[in-house]
Amino acid sequence: MRNYRHAPGQGRIRSVTDNAVYLDHNATTPVDPAVLDAMLPFLRGEFGNPSSAYPLGRRAHDAVEAARAAVAALIGAAPDEILFTGGGTESSNHAIRGAAAMAPPERRRIVTTTVEHPATEKPCRRLTAAGFSVERLPVDGTGRVALDAAERLIDAGTALVTAIHAQNELGTLQPITELATLARRHGALCHADAAQSLGKVPVDVAALGVDLLTIAGHKLYAPKGVGALYVRRGVRLDPLVDGAGQEGGRRPGTENVPYIVGLGTACRLAAGRLAEEAVRLDALRGDLQWRLADAVPGLRVLGHPTDRLPNTLSLLFPGVHGNDVLAAAPEVMASTGSACHAGDPQPSAVLLAMGIPPAEALGAVRLSLGRLTGPAEVERAAAALAAAWRSCRGG
Amino acid sequence: MRNYRHAPGQGRIRSVTDNAVYLDHNATTPVDPAVLDAMLPFLRGEFGNPSSAYPLGRRAHDAVEAARAAVAALIGAAPDEILFTGGGTESSNHAIRGAAAMAPPERRRIVTTTVEHPATEKPCRRLTAAGFSVERLPVDGTGRVALDAAERLIDAGTALVTAIHAQNELGTLQPITELATLARRHGALCHADAAQSLGKVPVDVAALGVDLLTIAGHKLYAPKGVGALYVRRGVRLDPLVDGAGQEGGRRPGTENVPYIVGLGTACRLAAGRLAEEAVRLDALRGDLQWRLADAVPGLRVLGHPTDRLPNTLSLLFPGVHGNDVLAAAPEVMASTGSACHAGDPQPSAVLLAMGIPPAEALGAVRLSLGRLTGPAEVERAAAALAAAWRSCRGG
Repeated sequence: MRNYRHAPGQGRIRSVTDNAVYLDHNATTPVDPAVLDAMLPFLRGEFGNPSSAYPLGRRAHDAVEAARAAVAALIGAAPDEILFTGGGTESSNHAIRGAAAMAPPERRRIVTTTVEHPATEKPCRRLTAAGFSVERLPVDGTGRVALDAAERLIDAGTALVTAIHAQNELGTLQPITELATLARRHGALCHADAAQSLGKVPVDVAALGVDLLTIAGHKLYAPKGVGALYVRRGVRLDPLVDGAGQEGGRRPGTENVPYIVGLGTACRLAAGRLAEEAVRLDALRGDLQWRLADAVPGLRVLGHPTDRLPNTLSLLFPGVHGNDVLAAAPEVMASTGSACHAGDPQPSAVLLAMGIPPAEALGAVRLSLGRLTGPAEVERAAAALAAAWRSCRGG
Repeated sequence: MRNYRHAPGQGRIRSVTDNAVYLDHNATTPVDPAVLDAMLPFLRGEFGNPSSAYPLGRRAHDAVEAARAAVAALIGAAPDEILFTGGGTESSNHAIRGAAAMAPPERRRIVTTTVEHPATEKPCRRLTAAGFSVERLPVDGTGRVALDAAERLIDAGTALVTAIHAQNELGTLQPITELATLARRHGALCHADAAQSLGKVPVDVAALGVDLLTIAGHKLYAPKGVGALYVRRGVRLDPLVDGAGQEGGRRPGTENVPYIVGLGTACRLAAGRLAEEAVRLDALRGDLQWRLADAVPGLRVLGHPTDRLPNTLSLLFPGVHGNDVLAAAPEVMASTGSACHAGDPQPSAVLLAMGIPPAEALGAVRLSLGRLTGPAEVERAAAALAAAWRSCRGG
């Protein structure tokens, strides 16, 4: 409660500090006050185990099912196509390893990209030890995969195509519909990691044509430690954990009722405000981008010019390290790479995959806007970052 | 908040209803108000990602590490021996499958018991498909494993011995120290599932001699959806999920900071009141047992007479189904088997493993006491259950 005050029951979470601006919504988001309000009864008196037969348990069960319907509705799925998980990493592991384990023996190829989150890249790497070949589609200078390579590599020997919908560092949107079409044509499954895209752009499983989709609560104003996996009806996955009968035995373990209720509420909120918020954030991001471009000659904006998230501004500051810029602007909370491996002194593998030389890639700063961002935050952040860049250059 | 009122900031959670008594603490517990108080800041303003380098992130990181120290302290471990997980099922899967994956090829035997939770039994069953043989130690009429069988079966070909510390339906405590000694003598690892025992009886990893120990938050007045796994220093486990670098890469995924803080607080509370609460619950359980034995001729008390949890009363009502008794006493919340598979019309596999005939086993009712239980609850529950039994017999 040091830097932010929540306005309980209101959708808008306001910064109440004059000296810090949160521009790291792609790393994590605050829990929306309305989400917390929905969760609190289940952290207090409504503590029943959804497997229990008495009313306290039944109410917990019903709350989980209502949340399942809300998550499903946001992505155009049926409730029975939603599994609740412990977060995006678990969801992607479950999708990739679960699909590979069920693939027929003649399908031993996994097709992915060079710009995946570790929650996709690492499970793919593990599958190579299990006899799979993993092909990684290259990306162009905007971070988008090359579809001609996809056409060459996706074939009748492919078990799964897995790609990140919105790249977390760049905001670039991948052509999931095209990849899914190729996958389907050859009888392969398609998984998309929508951890970053959900709630920022429309995500509809029918329009995308995917069989599996990763959802992460804490990128969507629900808490850290809850997620979901969309599994198209008829797709069979090997479970990632074994145990009792929860989630139809597909994801055992006593249900995290409060967070599941929170995720459902977060999906309902996102559905209601997605279009309006995308326009608002796109305008704020444009303002931030032009202010910085004006103050920092040679500043480079990364990612796709149009097919990217409305909230993400990925920058290369010229002639400096992004770490140093952020250290000189402590009033701005942002990151230099994926938050999941911040502190790592290596240049971002994603930027290297785009063909950016290592020395330049170290100038990266990712600014990601969200519900805590308004015009005042943009103005303050732009001034602070420009001054920080100048002090790094002059110092 | 229908049946219970929380007294915020107090350790005692009081039932405020006159017509319902919660006697299902082994299925799940309410979140202790002090636990919720500790969590709330991290569900509000302190929402940083522990991987983020700025102070908001560092404070989240520090909170996780403080919780790790508290969990470690409760079981006599070092903080770096604690991994946070999404719950007991994940912890047990991680321990069993992670240890098996790292076992040398000459160790292909897993030794477990016939009275395990599905979170242990099912991963063991999965390992048989991977070339392991699984030996299940039989139990006696009290639910305790036969140590002579353990001496025969644990040998130089054993990779892992895994057993439930306190059996969830019976409360019977297994001789973990003896099993761990046998395991160690033959170079095998030993895992104990302490989901039910932790906080009810002393659990010390050095005294038990185990290498791996499962902890579940929601049996310990922390929320559902968080747990921990003790991994003795030097023991290497194959990760259950792959991803970024959280938990040293051993359990990737953005940390569930609020629940981890809650689990730490719950462990601190448990450490402070364990001895006193065990005495209190044992006395209440004794009162409940004698009231029911007095009113129900032929009532049978299951489990070990002395080596069992102080809070658990496992009963066989004569000549009736436990389900019918509970249906006739709606003011008592309890279960007929493990809550994880309630609703299942089969007699409990655990009771069958003890040699109880199926028809008799259907008379089982498990009453589990806890912080919501006082003398008034015991009196009310005993009267309601005795009347329900009479109505089932006479009806």
